[in-house]
Amino acid sequence: ALAIEPIELPDVCQTLNSFQWAGVFEGLTNDQRIKLWAFIPVELQSTVLAVMREDARNQFIAVLPQQVIAEAISSATNAEVMGILDVLPKRTAAKLVNKLDPVMQSVLETSLSYSSNQVGRYANANVYTVNEKASVKDLINEIKSSDITNDGGSYFVVDDSLIYVGEVKISDILNSSQKTDVKELVIPNEKVILDQASLLEASDLVRGSNKAALPIVTKTGVFLGQFSIHDALDVFQAHYEEQLAHMGKVSDEDLFAPVAVSARRRAVWLGINLVTAFLASFVIGIFDAVLIEVVALAVLMPIVASMGGITGSQTLTLTIRGLATGQLGKGNFKVLRSKELKVAAINGVLWAMLVTVVTMYWFDNPGLSSILALAMVVNMTIASFAGIMIPMILDKLGIDPALAGSVILTTVTDVTGFFVFLGSATLLFIH
Amino acid sequence: ALAIEPIELPDVCQTLNSFQWAGVFEGLTNDQRIKLWAFIPVELQSTVLAVMREDARNQFIAVLPQQVIAEAISSATNAEVMGILDVLPKRTAAKLVNKLDPVMQSVLETSLSYSSNQVGRYANANVYTVNEKASVKDLINEIKSSDITNDGGSYFVVDDSLIYVGEVKISDILNSSQKTDVKELVIPNEKVILDQASLLEASDLVRGSNKAALPIVTKTGVFLGQFSIHDALDVFQAHYEEQLAHMGKVSDEDLFAPVAVSARRRAVWLGINLVTAFLASFVIGIFDAVLIEVVALAVLMPIVASMGGITGSQTLTLTIRGLATGQLGKGNFKVLRSKELKVAAINGVLWAMLVTVVTMYWFDNPGLSSILALAMVVNMTIASFAGIMIPMILDKLGIDPALAGSVILTTVTDVTGFFVFLGSATLLFIH
Repeated sequence: ALAIEPIELPDVCQTLNSFQWAGVFEGLTNDQRIKLWAFIPVELQSTVLAVMREDARNQFIAVLPQQVIAEAISSATNAEVMGILDVLPKRTAAKLVNKLDPVMQSVLETSLSYSSNQVGRYANANVYTVNEKASVKDLINEIKSSDITNDGGSYFVVDDSLIYVGEVKISDILNSSQKTDVKELVIPNEKVILDQASLLEASDLVRGSNKAALPIVTKTGVFLGQFSIHDALDVFQAHYEEQLAHMGKVSDEDLFAPVAVSARRRAVWLGINLVTAFLASFVIGIFDAVLIEVVALAVLMPIVASMGGITGSQTLTLTIRGLATGQLGKGNFKVLRSKELKVAAINGVLWAMLVTVVTMYWFDNPGLSSILALAMVVNMTIASFAGIMIPMILDKLGIDPALAGSVILTTVTDVTGFFVFLGSATLLFIH
Repeated sequence: ALAIEPIELPDVCQTLNSFQWAGVFEGLTNDQRIKLWAFIPVELQSTVLAVMREDARNQFIAVLPQQVIAEAISSATNAEVMGILDVLPKRTAAKLVNKLDPVMQSVLETSLSYSSNQVGRYANANVYTVNEKASVKDLINEIKSSDITNDGGSYFVVDDSLIYVGEVKISDILNSSQKTDVKELVIPNEKVILDQASLLEASDLVRGSNKAALPIVTKTGVFLGQFSIHDALDVFQAHYEEQLAHMGKVSDEDLFAPVAVSARRRAVWLGINLVTAFLASFVIGIFDAVLIEVVALAVLMPIVASMGGITGSQTLTLTIRGLATGQLGKGNFKVLRSKELKVAAINGVLWAMLVTVVTMYWFDNPGLSSILALAMVVNMTIASFAGIMIPMILDKLGIDPALAGSVILTTVTDVTGFFVFLGSATLLFIH
């Protein structure tokens, strides 16, 4: 479907796996991606699309002809198809689904009944299951004739209504007579993932188990597919990369998203920051009288705000991680708060002393140095307090602290820093 | 070894797996950890220690009696023991090793010959391998009698000198006569991990393969053990959490590390930040004449620095991720640079216009509003340029851009912002 221009690909491309191809594509512009697409072995295409980082995939699929997408997903697993359908306009998605074979269509229908954060949506139905009524002989024949891999040395067993009943181990199979029913060998497995679980919950469950994959079941016990430790790794990576992006005040975006798209997304963060910056400016504006009097205040005021900002950010980062991992809760947050306040106070006093010495040499004004030191200690302590309270409160309100926390914190440290520093200067210098 | 005080544990503790126990321990102070330790089932103890986040584990092991550690590691795998030995003083570590059984001692000796970032150090030797000379009958008997799980449906095959020769699939085993030598069924596997590979390289390899684990071999082909997708997940998580911590200007530290330890570690980041802050102050100090003349400059100058900081941070974050994932290199960094500069310029002009309107209402001074707008556009564009060049240069010098990048960037955006804003104000207002 795509015109193949004569491009010379390095030999190494012959041996790339789908992850490596995805990496190559993430490093290209959309124009280059389209040109290179035809060179990816057909059997890898759907996986390459599925494992590309989300926004890069979105940007690319948006410019890929429908027919090419249809070819790519014709051999895809249902979980891969879901990742691709997720980003297409509904009509286009519906058209594509209609072209797939009926079995896949019904699997996709089930997947589509879940929201984008529920693990049921991405249950990999492409796994081998044994009916409990099968005999050991049947099962062995199946294993002999197929290429199925049994992650973790056992197979999923279901009953006639596709209800998950447990697993059967290869050692038990080999130890039994060929006539035995699989039913007799089933080990009930309580480690299942409910279809409604979030992707992160599902990932934690697989990780905590010693298994390479866990079954996903509905409330009534119907087996939907598996969720593997490979899937868990993808989920964790996407989660952490999103958090990192947000800390850098950027969406989790394609390196080569169109300029207009990138500019619009970043504008949101810049706009929010501008409100914060103006707020700080207004606080400074309140004290313009003392700034005219003592110009050194304008020179030194960024130090107060900046040291408070870093202190708060340190506590905020630990608190957010503690909340995300479940290490931190009602039971121990007061212990942490008292610890963090002590750490901030110690560092506040330490660095305030150094700053006092430096500014005494610079401005030779004991009053100025004293209020600078005072403002630093106060701002750093309050910053630390805010660094633990802001995420705790956001978390209680159901707002992601990683997203909103640092903006609010910066507002607090800027406003507090300027207010305490310039306010005490006003008391000291304006008579 | 530890006195068990009468604590009532909730019933749920009975069912915790080692990951969940580790999570509980990370949320406790050292005093509480010691009290709770004896309640962990002995067979889980070594794993709990091994999967605890590194700094929490370090803090805890430092206060744990030697005999208790010895008990915990007596049933541990070599990879788990390595994680524990890594943080002990050399003498204590040597004493503990001497108490282990000779086989484990020799495995550990091999592990210890690798550096802490080489995958050879953490090769899990606790896996089942088949000698190529074994018959299918021997192998089947082995599978029948043991609880070995064959991650991915195949077994590692080695020769008499423990050289890794490939893998044998369960389907091939079942399809062959009992007298067949395993040797005839071996599928040579080129997907191996070299012992000298870094942990991140090894993790990428396992992830890119469709396998649940890959063999780790020496240069001469000797099988050392396996590296599983579970291990890869641990490595990725530690890597990302470290990056997140560094972006928050904090080491990857235990939530409940002692106050003195935390204060000392954070002081490093605060000290570096103070140098940056003073540099900005000196730049402002150059222009004190104009600040006395026009106090509104002091009110507005944080806006210029802050908008530049966010813009730079956005580009920096994407660049660092691009470098870390290999999406970004010599071939495409100019394309990205040009894109980022366009994005920054668009947003610079956009927000500068808004700021002009607001400040015109506020100060009614067209000259002031104009230089503010100019300084914003210049600073945001330079910030974006710096955001891509700083990590590229650091990467070339072999310095981790995630660690040093944002400090250098803040220095650039503060100094540039204040210099351009106050410098042009001096030209305009000082006659």
